[in-house]
Amino acid sequence: MTGQSAARRGSRAGRRSGDSGTREAILDAARAQFAQRGYHGATIRAIAAAAEVDPALVHHFYGTKEALFAAAMRLPIVPSEVLTAALARDAWDTGSAGAGGAGAGPGFGAHLVRTALGLWESAELRETFIGLLRSAVTSEQAAVMLREFIADSILSTVARAAGLTERGTSAEAEFRAAMVATQMLGLAFTRLVLALPPVAGASVDDLAVTVGPSIERYLTGEIQLPGRRSGERGRGGEPGRGGGRGGG
Amino acid sequence: MTGQSAARRGSRAGRRSGDSGTREAILDAARAQFAQRGYHGATIRAIAAAAEVDPALVHHFYGTKEALFAAAMRLPIVPSEVLTAALARDAWDTGSAGAGGAGAGPGFGAHLVRTALGLWESAELRETFIGLLRSAVTSEQAAVMLREFIADSILSTVARAAGLTERGTSAEAEFRAAMVATQMLGLAFTRLVLALPPVAGASVDDLAVTVGPSIERYLTGEIQLPGRRSGERGRGGEPGRGGGRGGG
Repeated sequence: MTGQSAARRGSRAGRRSGDSGTREAILDAARAQFAQRGYHGATIRAIAAAAEVDPALVHHFYGTKEALFAAAMRLPIVPSEVLTAALARDAWDTGSAGAGGAGAGPGFGAHLVRTALGLWESAELRETFIGLLRSAVTSEQAAVMLREFIADSILSTVARAAGLTERGTSAEAEFRAAMVATQMLGLAFTRLVLALPPVAGASVDDLAVTVGPSIERYLTGEIQLPGRRSGERGRGGEPGRGGGRGGG
Repeated sequence: MTGQSAARRGSRAGRRSGDSGTREAILDAARAQFAQRGYHGATIRAIAAAAEVDPALVHHFYGTKEALFAAAMRLPIVPSEVLTAALARDAWDTGSAGAGGAGAGPGFGAHLVRTALGLWESAELRETFIGLLRSAVTSEQAAVMLREFIADSILSTVARAAGLTERGTSAEAEFRAAMVATQMLGLAFTRLVLALPPVAGASVDDLAVTVGPSIERYLTGEIQLPGRRSGERGRGGEPGRGGGRGGG
């Protein structure tokens, strides 16, 4: 199910459809359910029940749970849709990639950073992101919601686009995508919230070529996967130290 | 203007020394000054004036501005002191480093990650850190304070320990240290606040060998420094893409 984020007015799928009060009631119910039950736990069915509408109407207005979450949080985009399009191979592979068929190759990391930085230019998205961070550091429940949303909606999309899901175990894909999250969330925090001058003032290109290789290494490089000890590293590489110092 | 706080009402220096009320008054004044003027703008003199004590008493109780800040924020450590000790060469160089005399060599990145993860084990430090993050996403003033503190107290210590200050311009050192911040703050946020399972559940060793090479690349690798265009990269290296994929 790729969501149809744009809610459609007009067709009377339900009792109160077309009424903006109904949409507001659905979004209010969604915010409450996501906060109480987390992103995983909240269901369209329970949200519909709380808003006193038919679940079909919620689907009709918002498409997927992710799109409903985005609308409820006032995210101007549905992350998995935007990322799936932006990270599709023809969007970043300029022909230099030779490494391994589908998924991440040289240039993928820089492209991912460029994509993220481009999205963050939107003041609306930035505000929402900072609002979600604020909730997460203030409330444990909000942290759970944000964690589940990031894992489900963003990291699994990145893992899929990078071809991780085809190449390794799901635990490996999750670890690699989570390592990408450690870099990208820190980049967001440092640039958008902290506004540390060298990062806030750097160009998109500077950051893309600087951070991109770290992202690629996390996605496809020789890193130590949890649970393996030295000597049995992922993809049989060297010990991690020094592994990022190579180059061309 | 740094010292425009209420004029001192008589010199009461020493009169209340030893009195825990005096310490509390100094810490209250410090919190207010740091919040109002940022970490750079706040001065021991102005804090003393606001607390109605002699500046010498503040120095006597707390030593440096950084130590006063740490006490005011209830940080259980003074970051520059702990980091200077932890990142001293004999603390991490196991003899394998051959790259370049003083400063970061293979193993430095992993050691830095290990050091940070070790510090974060302290519940007190974690609480303070999360409190500072919370303020930073809530208030622009608090973000300024945290930014200046991180730059002055933490990043400049890392830059010095890594030998950046001896090897390049100060702008290069600041950019490289700031890139380290993008990774380490994201690691902190993902592990401590978001508690993303693959990161929260990973061992210190797993994270150190995974993230360490990214840190080393930012500190000493061939990265593109802002303001230079392709063809004139820092240290004459390849374009950044692929630069982290090398290894052994």
